[in-house]
Amino acid sequence: MTETISLALFSGTDDKLTAAATMATGAAAMGRPVKVFLQFWALDAFRADRITKDHGVAHEAGPEGAAALRRLDEKGVHWSELLRQAKEIGDVEIAACAHSMEMLAIGRHDLDPLVDDVIGIAAFMAGVNGPVVFI
Amino acid sequence: MTETISLALFSGTDDKLTAAATMATGAAAMGRPVKVFLQFWALDAFRADRITKDHGVAHEAGPEGAAALRRLDEKGVHWSELLRQAKEIGDVEIAACAHSMEMLAIGRHDLDPLVDDVIGIAAFMAGVNGPVVFI
Amino acid sequence: MTETISLALFSGTDDKLTAAATMATGAAAMGRPVKVFLQFWALDAFRADRITKDHGVAHEAGPEGAAALRRLDEKGVHWSELLRQAKEIGDVEIAACAHSMEMLAIGRHDLDPLVDDVIGIAAFMAGVNGPVVFI
Repeated sequence: MTETISLALFSGTDDKLTAAATMATGAAAMGRPVKVFLQFWALDAFRADRITKDHGVAHEAGPEGAAALRRLDEKGVHWSELLRQAKEIGDVEIAACAHSMEMLAIGRHDLDPLVDDVIGIAAFMAGVNGPVVFI
Repeated sequence: MTETISLALFSGTDDKLTAAATMATGAAAMGRPVKVFLQFWALDAFRADRITKDHGVAHEAGPEGAAALRRLDEKGVHWSELLRQAKEIGDVEIAACAHSMEMLAIGRHDLDPLVDDVIGIAAFMAGVNGPVVFI
Repeated sequence: MTETISLALFSGTDDKLTAAATMATGAAAMGRPVKVFLQFWALDAFRADRITKDHGVAHEAGPEGAAALRRLDEKGVHWSELLRQAKEIGDVEIAACAHSMEMLAIGRHDLDPLVDDVIGIAAFMAGVNGPVVFI
């Protein structure tokens, strides 16, 4: 039960990031270490100046799904806040993918303080010790 | 080899649900326990009144891909039927995510009988004992 | 650390295939066996006559994201080349899903030589010995 949960976040839409943050919170609450790796469009969503902005939802959700998620957001907590809580209750590390940083021309200071580090894929894979969840 | 396969289903399109049902069937046939957790748009697809309706395909499939899947459906078995078979041959549990039920205003009686239970993320994570596949 | 990484590739867009190839390369560099299983739209992207053609990006990327990935491609290496390198440095097997071959009417000779074999879901699941990553 002390296996790490590794979350490779690829998608930057609010529905998938909410699912990811929920999983991180659940794992942290169970006492499992969580390692989050931000790539591509998920990394883009962690820019400090837009982390709580509207990042859209999966194409399949349609306008009805988008509206349902927005209603939830109004009374619930944002996925970035869920991740902040997960970091408080457990061992949760969030790293940005160095390669995606370069591709998107994002500098370290552009990122929200939730992000602890910038690492390469080899370092992420070296930390894998349990399930790897690609979201 | 007795590790559980945990499937966190997020997407509700017929191509991804077919991939998920195929994986559940393969795992059940190998004697592995399977735990399915339905979130967001995947949960929506399990409503009793529309489970076998057309749920579309991933945006990237395009009209050609959608047509290929439709041809397959006509001669093959629907993903819901694949899951029914997986439950018959193996230890397959399907649970709905309590949080997504609330978001989509879905009640327990709205769901297809394939769904065994409604649980929270902590209960799902507690059952993780092997790979976690997010689809 | 000798656990296999099993990659079930479903999506055929260049951004997700790049993420998958990067993960395969990272795992191979760490000395982990990698088993890749090609389904649906990912299988379609491995046709010999179009593997290096433009396969688009995830819908959420938008025109800006697509342009960023294209700039990366111009100076970097294509995902198919990354996979070729991963096979050279490590134990990486790539198999096509028999069921998806039938659905998309793809014959074995239509596929790029990167693909080693055609197998069913049961054979793929039998080889699972560690994380299963669905991309």
